[in-house]
Amino acid sequence: MLSQAEIKLINSLKLTKNRRKTGLFLVEGPKMISELINYANFEIKFIAANKKWIDSHSDLNNFALKEISENALQKLSNFSTANEVLAVVKIPEYQEFTTNIDSLYLVLDNIQDPGNLGTIIRTADWFGIKQIICSTDTVDCFNPKVVQATMGSLFRVKCYYEDIPTFLKKQQIPIYGTLLSGKNIYEENLSQSGFIVIGNESKGISQEVQSLITRPLFIPNYSQSKAESLNASIASAIVCAEFRRSQN
Amino acid sequence: MLSQAEIKLINSLKLTKNRRKTGLFLVEGPKMISELINYANFEIKFIAANKKWIDSHSDLNNFALKEISENALQKLSNFSTANEVLAVVKIPEYQEFTTNIDSLYLVLDNIQDPGNLGTIIRTADWFGIKQIICSTDTVDCFNPKVVQATMGSLFRVKCYYEDIPTFLKKQQIPIYGTLLSGKNIYEENLSQSGFIVIGNESKGISQEVQSLITRPLFIPNYSQSKAESLNASIASAIVCAEFRRSQN
Repeated sequence: MLSQAEIKLINSLKLTKNRRKTGLFLVEGPKMISELINYANFEIKFIAANKKWIDSHSDLNNFALKEISENALQKLSNFSTANEVLAVVKIPEYQEFTTNIDSLYLVLDNIQDPGNLGTIIRTADWFGIKQIICSTDTVDCFNPKVVQATMGSLFRVKCYYEDIPTFLKKQQIPIYGTLLSGKNIYEENLSQSGFIVIGNESKGISQEVQSLITRPLFIPNYSQSKAESLNASIASAIVCAEFRRSQN
Repeated sequence: MLSQAEIKLINSLKLTKNRRKTGLFLVEGPKMISELINYANFEIKFIAANKKWIDSHSDLNNFALKEISENALQKLSNFSTANEVLAVVKIPEYQEFTTNIDSLYLVLDNIQDPGNLGTIIRTADWFGIKQIICSTDTVDCFNPKVVQATMGSLFRVKCYYEDIPTFLKKQQIPIYGTLLSGKNIYEENLSQSGFIVIGNESKGISQEVQSLITRPLFIPNYSQSKAESLNASIASAIVCAEFRRSQN
């Protein structure tokens, strides 16, 4: 059974400051836990699961498995429907970021919505983008809602938190960004490597970061559309898809 | 000031069944209300706003404007941060859907997440898709979270709720859908008109609807990507973008 200290720990991990302090985060649900156990190289501290889940995973005796009642699990869950199992996992320590001049990267300038960040990580994974540079004011990638929205892609895509202007000033490869004043993405010759900057949900890319963009892009809307903008995760996806399409 | 009956009405509109019963829905926040007043042809029953919002909109005396305290507004809001103003609005009655053989439509097969539906409506608007056909089990497009995520596009894009198999069987134009077994979207000759079917977030497109798809499509992932799928709103966006790109 879970100890009171473990219950307290799990509850505390809903907050960024406690995740930073303990170096731990939560993973919830059978699908995510299955990816975590089978494909991720993350250190699992312990797994808390209902009896049904434990009974069907009797082979997992090399993990610290703790049984928990449905009721207690629901109380600990970050979601309206608790999901059989959760794990307390060590936040990985990545080596310092180094730019590979053949690669494509996303740069997120103050993404606030956990669902958007999770979806961007999932989309990056689909399109073979393995590293994302997030501004220090972007939502924490180990936030439970972000973790959930990545659908396991968080185990494959690395997020680095950096001061974006300082970071971009050091780079030698093209810096793309979606701006209303940018050039039609479908008429541009997109390079194989580069940073693609995505801006905040309501304010877009900050002035300082805009000034560092060497290749501003625009996703054309349909003639006479009155929509003002696209959601940040949608814009990221259309840009990533076009980079990959145009290079094939 | 708002009457108790009006407060009760606003609260009741969080639930689909009450929106259906009253034929009303909620719009929240200054940006959405501004779009509603200036560009939408929707009937506004009344607007409840804080003093600051009312003072800066003294020209709006042809609307029923009711002052509300910050505190009361926060209690009524569907969001963690209440947003100055909300409106009770009549759900529009659209004429029966008729297919235009020159147009592109989205068909949503059991989309459950309000954020996804809202984002899909916003993306459709950007790409000039004016009508969306939703399965009867798709989340209600007048759900407050959907309304918010559309960023005003709900006022321009019409959603029809239909039994999808019955609906699709009557159609004469191509029926596209994203399936793992589909053909590479970038190698297909996409027609100007058609229905694009998007499936449920975890189960994809139902078997019955799959059998009605005449042109299955696949969004290629990057070589060696281990991601299993894309988010439903992301897949819709990439497909819409490619239809518009390839026809230009």
